[in-house]
Amino acid sequence: MSTASHPLLIRGGTVVNADREERADVLLVDGKIVAVGEGAAAQAPAGTETLDASGQYVMPGGIDPHTHMQLPFMGTVTADDFFTGTAAGLAGGTTTIIDFVIPAPQESLMDAYRKWRGWAEKSAADYSFHVAVTWWSEQVREDMGRLVRDEGINSFKHFMAYKNAIMCDDETLVNSFKRALELGAMPTVHAENGELVYLLQQEVARMGITGPEGHPLSRPPMVEAEAANRAIAIADVLGVPIYVVHVSCLEAADAIARARARGQRVYGEVLAGHLTIDDSVYRHPDYATAAAYVMSPPFRPKEHQEALWRGLQAGHLHTTATDHCTFCAEQKAVGKDNFAKTPNGTGGVEERMAVVWDAGVNTGRLTPSEFVAITSANTAKLFNVYPRKGFIGVGADADVVLWDPKATKTLSAKTQHSKGDFNIFEGRQVTGLPSHTISRGRLVYVNGELRAEKGAGQYFKRPAFGPNFQAVQKRAQETAPTAVARAQ
Amino acid sequence: MSTASHPLLIRGGTVVNADREERADVLLVDGKIVAVGEGAAAQAPAGTETLDASGQYVMPGGIDPHTHMQLPFMGTVTADDFFTGTAAGLAGGTTTIIDFVIPAPQESLMDAYRKWRGWAEKSAADYSFHVAVTWWSEQVREDMGRLVRDEGINSFKHFMAYKNAIMCDDETLVNSFKRALELGAMPTVHAENGELVYLLQQEVARMGITGPEGHPLSRPPMVEAEAANRAIAIADVLGVPIYVVHVSCLEAADAIARARARGQRVYGEVLAGHLTIDDSVYRHPDYATAAAYVMSPPFRPKEHQEALWRGLQAGHLHTTATDHCTFCAEQKAVGKDNFAKTPNGTGGVEERMAVVWDAGVNTGRLTPSEFVAITSANTAKLFNVYPRKGFIGVGADADVVLWDPKATKTLSAKTQHSKGDFNIFEGRQVTGLPSHTISRGRLVYVNGELRAEKGAGQYFKRPAFGPNFQAVQKRAQETAPTAVARAQ
Amino acid sequence: MSTASHPLLIRGGTVVNADREERADVLLVDGKIVAVGEGAAAQAPAGTETLDASGQYVMPGGIDPHTHMQLPFMGTVTADDFFTGTAAGLAGGTTTIIDFVIPAPQESLMDAYRKWRGWAEKSAADYSFHVAVTWWSEQVREDMGRLVRDEGINSFKHFMAYKNAIMCDDETLVNSFKRALELGAMPTVHAENGELVYLLQQEVARMGITGPEGHPLSRPPMVEAEAANRAIAIADVLGVPIYVVHVSCLEAADAIARARARGQRVYGEVLAGHLTIDDSVYRHPDYATAAAYVMSPPFRPKEHQEALWRGLQAGHLHTTATDHCTFCAEQKAVGKDNFAKTPNGTGGVEERMAVVWDAGVNTGRLTPSEFVAITSANTAKLFNVYPRKGFIGVGADADVVLWDPKATKTLSAKTQHSKGDFNIFEGRQVTGLPSHTISRGRLVYVNGELRAEKGAGQYFKRPAFGPNFQAVQKRAQETAPTAVARAQ
Amino acid sequence: MSTASHPLLIRGGTVVNADREERADVLLVDGKIVAVGEGAAAQAPAGTETLDASGQYVMPGGIDPHTHMQLPFMGTVTADDFFTGTAAGLAGGTTTIIDFVIPAPQESLMDAYRKWRGWAEKSAADYSFHVAVTWWSEQVREDMGRLVRDEGINSFKHFMAYKNAIMCDDETLVNSFKRALELGAMPTVHAENGELVYLLQQEVARMGITGPEGHPLSRPPMVEAEAANRAIAIADVLGVPIYVVHVSCLEAADAIARARARGQRVYGEVLAGHLTIDDSVYRHPDYATAAAYVMSPPFRPKEHQEALWRGLQAGHLHTTATDHCTFCAEQKAVGKDNFAKTPNGTGGVEERMAVVWDAGVNTGRLTPSEFVAITSANTAKLFNVYPRKGFIGVGADADVVLWDPKATKTLSAKTQHSKGDFNIFEGRQVTGLPSHTISRGRLVYVNGELRAEKGAGQYFKRPAFGPNFQAVQKRAQETAPTAVARAQ
Repeated sequence: MSTASHPLLIRGGTVVNADREERADVLLVDGKIVAVGEGAAAQAPAGTETLDASGQYVMPGGIDPHTHMQLPFMGTVTADDFFTGTAAGLAGGTTTIIDFVIPAPQESLMDAYRKWRGWAEKSAADYSFHVAVTWWSEQVREDMGRLVRDEGINSFKHFMAYKNAIMCDDETLVNSFKRALELGAMPTVHAENGELVYLLQQEVARMGITGPEGHPLSRPPMVEAEAANRAIAIADVLGVPIYVVHVSCLEAADAIARARARGQRVYGEVLAGHLTIDDSVYRHPDYATAAAYVMSPPFRPKEHQEALWRGLQAGHLHTTATDHCTFCAEQKAVGKDNFAKTPNGTGGVEERMAVVWDAGVNTGRLTPSEFVAITSANTAKLFNVYPRKGFIGVGADADVVLWDPKATKTLSAKTQHSKGDFNIFEGRQVTGLPSHTISRGRLVYVNGELRAEKGAGQYFKRPAFGPNFQAVQKRAQETAPTAVARAQ
Repeated sequence: MSTASHPLLIRGGTVVNADREERADVLLVDGKIVAVGEGAAAQAPAGTETLDASGQYVMPGGIDPHTHMQLPFMGTVTADDFFTGTAAGLAGGTTTIIDFVIPAPQESLMDAYRKWRGWAEKSAADYSFHVAVTWWSEQVREDMGRLVRDEGINSFKHFMAYKNAIMCDDETLVNSFKRALELGAMPTVHAENGELVYLLQQEVARMGITGPEGHPLSRPPMVEAEAANRAIAIADVLGVPIYVVHVSCLEAADAIARARARGQRVYGEVLAGHLTIDDSVYRHPDYATAAAYVMSPPFRPKEHQEALWRGLQAGHLHTTATDHCTFCAEQKAVGKDNFAKTPNGTGGVEERMAVVWDAGVNTGRLTPSEFVAITSANTAKLFNVYPRKGFIGVGADADVVLWDPKATKTLSAKTQHSKGDFNIFEGRQVTGLPSHTISRGRLVYVNGELRAEKGAGQYFKRPAFGPNFQAVQKRAQETAPTAVARAQ
Repeated sequence: MSTASHPLLIRGGTVVNADREERADVLLVDGKIVAVGEGAAAQAPAGTETLDASGQYVMPGGIDPHTHMQLPFMGTVTADDFFTGTAAGLAGGTTTIIDFVIPAPQESLMDAYRKWRGWAEKSAADYSFHVAVTWWSEQVREDMGRLVRDEGINSFKHFMAYKNAIMCDDETLVNSFKRALELGAMPTVHAENGELVYLLQQEVARMGITGPEGHPLSRPPMVEAEAANRAIAIADVLGVPIYVVHVSCLEAADAIARARARGQRVYGEVLAGHLTIDDSVYRHPDYATAAAYVMSPPFRPKEHQEALWRGLQAGHLHTTATDHCTFCAEQKAVGKDNFAKTPNGTGGVEERMAVVWDAGVNTGRLTPSEFVAITSANTAKLFNVYPRKGFIGVGADADVVLWDPKATKTLSAKTQHSKGDFNIFEGRQVTGLPSHTISRGRLVYVNGELRAEKGAGQYFKRPAFGPNFQAVQKRAQETAPTAVARAQ
Repeated sequence: MSTASHPLLIRGGTVVNADREERADVLLVDGKIVAVGEGAAAQAPAGTETLDASGQYVMPGGIDPHTHMQLPFMGTVTADDFFTGTAAGLAGGTTTIIDFVIPAPQESLMDAYRKWRGWAEKSAADYSFHVAVTWWSEQVREDMGRLVRDEGINSFKHFMAYKNAIMCDDETLVNSFKRALELGAMPTVHAENGELVYLLQQEVARMGITGPEGHPLSRPPMVEAEAANRAIAIADVLGVPIYVVHVSCLEAADAIARARARGQRVYGEVLAGHLTIDDSVYRHPDYATAAAYVMSPPFRPKEHQEALWRGLQAGHLHTTATDHCTFCAEQKAVGKDNFAKTPNGTGGVEERMAVVWDAGVNTGRLTPSEFVAITSANTAKLFNVYPRKGFIGVGADADVVLWDPKATKTLSAKTQHSKGDFNIFEGRQVTGLPSHTISRGRLVYVNGELRAEKGAGQYFKRPAFGPNFQAVQKRAQETAPTAVARAQ
């Protein structure tokens, strides 16, 4: 990278980690945090630049565990590539993304992985990948091992929807989950019953509904809840942890809560959009506006938003993400005569931190520490890069956001850094914004000025067998059929 | 039938229906109940035989909604045919069965139906059939219609287990449930996730477990709960009522309870065996004994029995059955070296009423009226033959049992009428037994003497569009996507 | 009454009972149902008047298990006395009420009972009483026994709210529930935590809120849910059934559902108003309108109405009532400067049947049989007057309503028969109305003409030890500490 | 204190905090942790003693948030005083206790507080106090403020049981909870319905049960669940966090889980004994043994233990404690003829860490980090002394345990350090034990040798308004009646 980063000393702020807040200075040198607390200033080398953080929170940079930058889709590609998308994230205080490698059925996982690695080289912020398993074969099984051992992949994604495309049937789920367990890698699922969606799309079309208002009608909450429950049950029977992406409805959140109440290691992700936007958007009189909100699972009636917040508060849901996947109006218009053909996806990587702070911390739902937990630390822990990521402490990557809890702004497509002509949070006023974002020790966003650099982001490996896999393995021994049979 | 039935007058008993108990005489003429109450004796025609029912309950004959008589299976056939099986039922106070037509994949539903109708002609008690949908095609769709319209079938069965045999995938479930809704017929499911069972059978075998103790290990409760939840969710999305057969575990009962709490019309059946027998039987040192208990879902740890009783008490579970499907020791021994090959099935048609009374009414869990509800009336209502069956009242079929609440007996294979060399309730002492069973007005069991007659039983048609289908149809109009879209 | 009732023959209607619908004629003679079905017409004596019920449902007259006619309260008396109130009920298809005897603390239960019996002599429809236990002493214990044995009382009411007035503390609850169990009588509760209400009334006043909008703020759902849960827990520990009156919120309905899922005999009542009216009424700009809705528990946000319907559908809630207790605007105005002083109460005895039919049956939530269950049969069963009440069958009281499912009307204070100047359902259009109401065989409402007669209603006794008490007693033996200790 | 502590360097161990594990050295100087990680050894001053921790875990010393040392009770005093009790804790790896000041009704809170402070001066480990509110007056309100402001008390205890002694009625609960909210202090409850216990004790006695087997019969789970639910509901209505001590049954754990699922800040404590011991102990043929287990809530049937573990795994339950309160056989014998007179209490402060590790970590239920969370960090956070306590990090108190995961031992009264002649874990073999315990930088337990010093423990203040109170305050503003009224 061309520009070397100066040492930075962040003075006078309140450092917030997932477990506590404390007044402390923070020293960043060579892309790492080297001191936190009283002695930090004294250790600052010559040439250190000092940032005044008084009145501000000093927090780990956000991690967005669910983005799709530069996704090829239906002959087109999402508006944000890995550079513009990660840059937009930096502007919003997010310093890390986990994107997805999505092989086509029959495509080699390794080939797809290499393709995505190439595309991502232009990233302005750090990145990693979940790899999707969309079909099953002996080769897939072997490639999963290679990805884990050699490439630092420790999570695999499964789409339970999208029939006749990338949908997994139960046989693939069962085989892939089992393989993930052997490898110490986390299976994750997009939970929607693809057979029901397929039928309902036809039913809704038959009723003469062609516009975006048909989208949520074809994917009601129970379609999601069923799939979430199924994936969780399979994971339970196999004894593997599981992570459910973009939980959007109370019934799916309940499925997770029920499993957790049984002691199962189940984790749930929720999108900033699902927390704050309801399904009335699909009935917006302007087609382009309504179509812009088409994503899956769809936005839900208001009571579901309350349920998702409660899930975060109760600890049933663990991470926040965006599923950032932007298409412009022209791309969306492909579905003009049939909502089912609308490219699915919305943005948010730039707004997530502010939206969640404003609706979460300002309302007393969450403490600042809980905010850190759900915007970075929990993701880092679940995907086993904690405390390197998601933590303000000695030895951690110098991914830091200075958060001004008094700053205020009205979110809008006009002022966003993300590509695309739409902002799903358009007109929403938020209080609490990043004043500075620091990525690997470099100031990349300063009071409104974005200094993102193409290619400055680094791929990071995530080791397998994170802490909860060790517990799972012990538990498996205790509850294995042989052990159970023996004990009885 | 050779023997005409005399008019019968049942005097001095306590008539129990699902809604009340009352002291009343009951007059039976020509296979029908013609009078109940004070005037009954006065209406008795010449030649009426009088039964003294003082100290006894006079209840509707039991209906067993889940039997497999004369089932061809793995090159052999169950021990009880339609005569011996229905005769055993009569000895236990059960006057009606609903058995299953199970077409092989690709077999015509109509052909299979006719085959079973032929086999059943020798029945000693009344019978009807659920018809299984084990595959999907346009022909299956048409045959479903023909069965409903012409043959009086109003329920279809779906096996979610038995991979590579009769297992339905989600596509078939979705299509068949939708078709059932159009026809006003009830979909029913055997709820076990077949992919998980398949994997676990291999896993358990790999651990070196070959005996019957491997059977429950390969079918843990979550395998059942997942499938129950899935089928219920599909029914919910499609707006069709659903009936879950042989609910054996608390997690599946919970899935039903959750759906009912949402207002969904879901119904659950529980077997007399699952209510009273626990999984320790599979670890019996005698192979033949352990193997004799192999059925699916398997018997469960004790806490599940308590949960099933509570489901009946709370109204989450509605009917009791047996899945009567008997194999002798020699047949069971096919699975000697591999539990997964053991023919699945156990008996009980003869013992159900006594076992449920003893463990349910004698313990105060159930009132006598609630006993009638779960042993006959609810089944009759759900499958739309009420009040012709399941009811003591004018106009109903004269299927009656005189129940002596003080009579006591020790259940045993040695004294049973059912074929087969085993009794899963062996050694259980029960209080409360039939003194007389009357089928279509004929005394077929009198104080221990069985007078069953081959071919005396009649096939009865069950009309479609029972009462709750009318409600479902109204509800569907109210909540249809078009209506919802309109209302918003 | 001077006019003897003619025999009546109801022809061509669809008779609806809680367990079924059937086309049948019904013959009423001398205040009783003497024939149902084919033979009815043939048995009609000379002078029988025939009613054409074609296109109509013939149902048991409604039973409202919760009314307060002529209630003395804060120096005034409710607008409807026992004549006008019961007459209004007849106009709406309700032929029976269960009202409340409410002794003041220290007042003798017998004295209060006799007072109410005197007031009620002018009733136009049949009536009985729940008797409130508002304090505890040896005399109260004895009077409970006398009321049960001699006066046909089989239910006792307990107010958990109204601190410094009629509120029961836990000591009284525990003693009274235990006594009720001995007597075979049902304890019932008004579930709100009176200490919390007392504190919140002060808190809300301190915030400067004096109008009716303060009423729901002082009685949030959790205040009700806590009390319901507490009463249910006490009943569970003592082994006595329990009936919770006017369940208004999802949290209280959940408390009942949870207990039922444990197998406990808990029953819930819901008011027509709580099913259909939300709490926005308390913020109505017109004071008199807002104040007219003041009752406890208050009307709730919309999501609670959905939960109550689901409770009825699932069988967690069992009866519908009104808590009919009307005050005119002048009486309500006592609370003008302090919402907490507003006389609590609203009407509805006249509208309940139509409102529940329209919102319940017309929407497909309920079948006609389920409507009968929750408007009459379940109440009759729970308070042990079934099948005399709540049933169309031979021997039952001739309390019948002919229901025209096509008739339509806009509910309004202007057209109501109830006294008082307000109608909480004002402007609501309903489809489904009584064309004729028959009380003890007399036509008392005919196509809009009310023929109620003062004093024609009769007090009816309700025997103790209804069917579920017998089960409870057996269960108590099984689970008594001594039995448990013995078994272990 | 006489003996100064040497600097200590702990080398080569695995440091475990609640959020992560890492290989790191730890340097302790002057009672504080001064370095963790690579540089620690380099910073060690002259005279530093080095401990080899290879193969061991280095964890925060345990905090037992629930002990009763030297408790005066029924004319006698518990066997362990503050010295012997805290010393026993040190032997087991517990370096901090929170005990209880329990004023008698009408006794001044300040007087009681000073009395307990005096008794505690002999403690060998650090200590603080919860103060019980057993009655209500203006003076109590004022004293609560004084204790919070001047004495570092931030939690108040309420007994919902013990009628006619220290039981709080709802009026006191409501007032005290409200006061606690104003002060930023945590209300805590002993949840059992005292009226029910009182009645059941009489009922059980009436059945002739006088021995310890009567104890659990008089306090069934629903008695606890009711009280827990009530206290939680009151806290919810008032908007104050709440902490439920010694949750012993699944129904109470469910009450907490339900409230948390609503987003409420509710916290649950569970005892090592309730996690591992079932109620069969009360039926032990030896009276002294059975009586030794008498405590409240009592030990429960096995299924409750599983539920408590699941609560810890799911995050519904947060801390582990002991309710250490030891009486010798002679003291227990007071209840010989009436179980209700048996002094309630059992030990465990010495065994908690080992028992929870063995049954929790060795079985795969918990990771080592989760073990730290529930044995120290969560308690420190909830009572606002984190990261001073419950944390291995720079600036924290040097309260450290070196944990040998391979060490094994059979627990027994014969080898315990606690006074009293009984060990409730007698005969239990555990793997995982402290090799060294360090309190405020001093080695107090070394490979079996206890070096506890009388008076070396220090009282520590706990500041009010911990992090979650700030959230609660914001939430209260948002949901205050005035705000709600305004918003609508």
